Amino acid sequence: MANGAALIIGAGDATGGAIAKAFAHEGLTACVTRRPRNLSDLDALVGSIEAEGGKARAFGVDARSEDETIALFDQVEAEVGPIEACVFNIGANVRFPVTDTTSRVYQKVWEMAAFAGFLAGREAARVMSPRGRGTIIFTGATAAIRGGAGFSAFAGAKHALRALAQSMARELGPQGIHVAHVVIDGAIDSAFIRDMLPDAAERRERDGLLIPDEIAKNYVWLHNQHRSAWTHELDLRPWCETW
Amino acid sequence: MANGAALIIGAGDATGGAIAKAFAHEGLTACVTRRPRNLSDLDALVGSIEAEGGKARAFGVDARSEDETIALFDQVEAEVGPIEACVFNIGANVRFPVTDTTSRVYQKVWEMAAFAGFLAGREAARVMSPRGRGTIIFTGATAAIRGGAGFSAFAGAKHALRALAQSMARELGPQGIHVAHVVIDGAIDSAFIRDMLPDAAERRERDGLLIPDEIAKNYVWLHNQHRSAWTHELDLRPWCETW
Amino acid sequence: MANGAALIIGAGDATGGAIAKAFAHEGLTACVTRRPRNLSDLDALVGSIEAEGGKARAFGVDARSEDETIALFDQVEAEVGPIEACVFNIGANVRFPVTDTTSRVYQKVWEMAAFAGFLAGREAARVMSPRGRGTIIFTGATAAIRGGAGFSAFAGAKHALRALAQSMARELGPQGIHVAHVVIDGAIDSAFIRDMLPDAAERRERDGLLIPDEIAKNYVWLHNQHRSAWTHELDLRPWCETW
Amino acid sequence: MANGAALIIGAGDATGGAIAKAFAHEGLTACVTRRPRNLSDLDALVGSIEAEGGKARAFGVDARSEDETIALFDQVEAEVGPIEACVFNIGANVRFPVTDTTSRVYQKVWEMAAFAGFLAGREAARVMSPRGRGTIIFTGATAAIRGGAGFSAFAGAKHALRALAQSMARELGPQGIHVAHVVIDGAIDSAFIRDMLPDAAERRERDGLLIPDEIAKNYVWLHNQHRSAWTHELDLRPWCETW
Repeated sequence: MANGAALIIGAGDATGGAIAKAFAHEGLTACVTRRPRNLSDLDALVGSIEAEGGKARAFGVDARSEDETIALFDQVEAEVGPIEACVFNIGANVRFPVTDTTSRVYQKVWEMAAFAGFLAGREAARVMSPRGRGTIIFTGATAAIRGGAGFSAFAGAKHALRALAQSMARELGPQGIHVAHVVIDGAIDSAFIRDMLPDAAERRERDGLLIPDEIAKNYVWLHNQHRSAWTHELDLRPWCETW
Repeated sequence: MANGAALIIGAGDATGGAIAKAFAHEGLTACVTRRPRNLSDLDALVGSIEAEGGKARAFGVDARSEDETIALFDQVEAEVGPIEACVFNIGANVRFPVTDTTSRVYQKVWEMAAFAGFLAGREAARVMSPRGRGTIIFTGATAAIRGGAGFSAFAGAKHALRALAQSMARELGPQGIHVAHVVIDGAIDSAFIRDMLPDAAERRERDGLLIPDEIAKNYVWLHNQHRSAWTHELDLRPWCETW
Repeated sequence: MANGAALIIGAGDATGGAIAKAFAHEGLTACVTRRPRNLSDLDALVGSIEAEGGKARAFGVDARSEDETIALFDQVEAEVGPIEACVFNIGANVRFPVTDTTSRVYQKVWEMAAFAGFLAGREAARVMSPRGRGTIIFTGATAAIRGGAGFSAFAGAKHALRALAQSMARELGPQGIHVAHVVIDGAIDSAFIRDMLPDAAERRERDGLLIPDEIAKNYVWLHNQHRSAWTHELDLRPWCETW
Repeated sequence: MANGAALIIGAGDATGGAIAKAFAHEGLTACVTRRPRNLSDLDALVGSIEAEGGKARAFGVDARSEDETIALFDQVEAEVGPIEACVFNIGANVRFPVTDTTSRVYQKVWEMAAFAGFLAGREAARVMSPRGRGTIIFTGATAAIRGGAGFSAFAGAKHALRALAQSMARELGPQGIHVAHVVIDGAIDSAFIRDMLPDAAERRERDGLLIPDEIAKNYVWLHNQHRSAWTHELDLRPWCETW
């Protein structure tokens, strides 16, 4: 339990996995979550961290469930150690014309990308506040900064998450807790993107996709910043991106 | 049915009432809503509009209910006329430290200030889109622009509403529908504020509170802008406000 | 001298002329300026305002000259009446790759679009401040909000002007002076644009260009806002604009 | 000449000196500038870098002079090596009511904080562009993001610098040049601040002032980011800052 835990909520994608590895490399025990039904998907990640000499634990949690989230934080604190860093990394990118956006989609996107972020942020604040230290990082997107045609639901959720991050930073900074928001403004090199973009391989070749390990370094960087000079928000995008 | 309807969702407060009067003054039938259990509170507003020679109708609707919202738009279109302007004016200003924010509060604030706004905006788009005209205005707040200590829930909902407004504007502008977001950045002269601020009377005296009728004029102004020069966002604050 | 003056600095383009006409229509004497060598270009504008029963005066002024600007304000106050509204409307849109941007261009653009704006704003504040009333409006552009490839000079000047407007609004609002910034986010129907855009006529036909008279109405609107609900910033763009 | 140069324009203050040391620590030759008449003030900095085994060179340059700036870049490239990183770190914080702001002050602040930044940025782009690599970082401030009472001149210059950074980033990113803007949002631990703030010692004690060495680490971090995940803008402030 020496070095405490880094809790990555939403570690099912390439970015979450890379962030987990990066924090494990720092000596923290990477605690990674996915939905219970996909828990076994985390076996490879845990194995890979352990193979490199790191420590990792996987948890099956529905991040939209208040009870499960509270229990998760309690369990990690009890079994692993103090949560020094908490990363909320669940996205829910959908795109529909507003008149084709069902209330079910609008609500689900918010539950995954904003409400679950609130639960994670609040519980992280709960366990970190008495210690007066800790880092909470939210993964944002272009849609956190601007709306766009087809993005009523996704931009709404991402804007809400950014408002949460900003509100928590202003509130918890003076309590010694570092709250940051990372705006990922480009396509990430991942299985999903390789399926979606015909030119993914070519883009990857020339660093035209965000490489998860390079994203992850910035999360660790934020965690390690001295408290005299904390960053609340930074953007990340490939060098050749149009923005 | 000559001039169509202005539908004000959330007309229970001073601002909503003033907006309704202002649109009625333009010749539109002001269709105003409140929750069913407070419907009778709208009698005075309807009476006052009719006394000035305007037309008004009151509807008891839970704006968070998809079914009721769809039915509302259908009923107004059928019984009153084409909805030329739709204003979403429901707020939900609460302030709690993030660790004291219950998931119930976080969700309720979002349901009232963001989800209900999505339902209203989507239904307005549905009826306006085939006609290729209409105005949809969302009432925003300072918290739509920046988060702050204690505002995790409120800023989240208001940011989501602003993202909706921006996404819809980019999507529906080219369809001839004018979508706007008004950032009200100050205290409004209202019963609520008079209870809350000890110096409300003195501030009112020197125009240090936003006067609802003056706010309302700007909503009508936006509705009447020529389509060659539409405003998507404007802020409103008293002359002496610190910001 | 009954109703005072509206001073439009930079009235040589379609927008400035339309703003002058709109204020003259309100009963203010439209005082319009251009560089001395182009002064006669304002004859038609003055004639057109007078033909409609309005009052107008033309002044040849280099807006980048501190002495000339001070003298202009003094002359208008002495000969025409109190300046109730002052509009700074000089642009300087250029586009060069940064390595091709000469220091001369960078400086000239700043002198025209920012330094001259500072002189106008400061002098307007000087004459309005003792009266505790007046409106100062700066014409902004997309480049006031975001930089872009090729816009190092233009965006720099327009950002500086926006910073001036925001700083002055926060400083002078509590003195009763309304300072506003209008973000014109699209092409304006003008001789310049008709030369530049091959499809200008077609765009004009469907209101796809900003019509100067419609822009101007918003300046008058800002001037007439009640001080309990002042707008500092609004954007204007055609309905079909992509943004 | 192996590792190239880091050119810090404006190394007279605590921040510039710390940035120089941090880049020297990375193996780059720290090339630091001040005005010619204060050149000897850099002796201690150069000595301190060399004492730690680093390499440093001092140059007396008026950063507002185009000729001197062009010559500086040529000299560094010829005598030291390729400029891998260029930091523009000249501020000019002044605060005056707008009506008390002389045109001389307004112009001087712009020359130091914006025009000199343009010259530095353009010359950096000139030498880096053919190599398709390099980092250009501009030091920003709160006033780069928002205007405020008394900040017409300073906010104007800092907004212009931010517009330059953003325009250059969009233009030069696809050429392989990383352009970043750092928003320093708080008081820096420096001789100036220790003179200005009565509680500086107490604030320093609890990390309530930005520590220059901690600021500097972020500049090096930005320089070392992999091009698949570049940051254009980040903010830095002490943990206990109100913002």
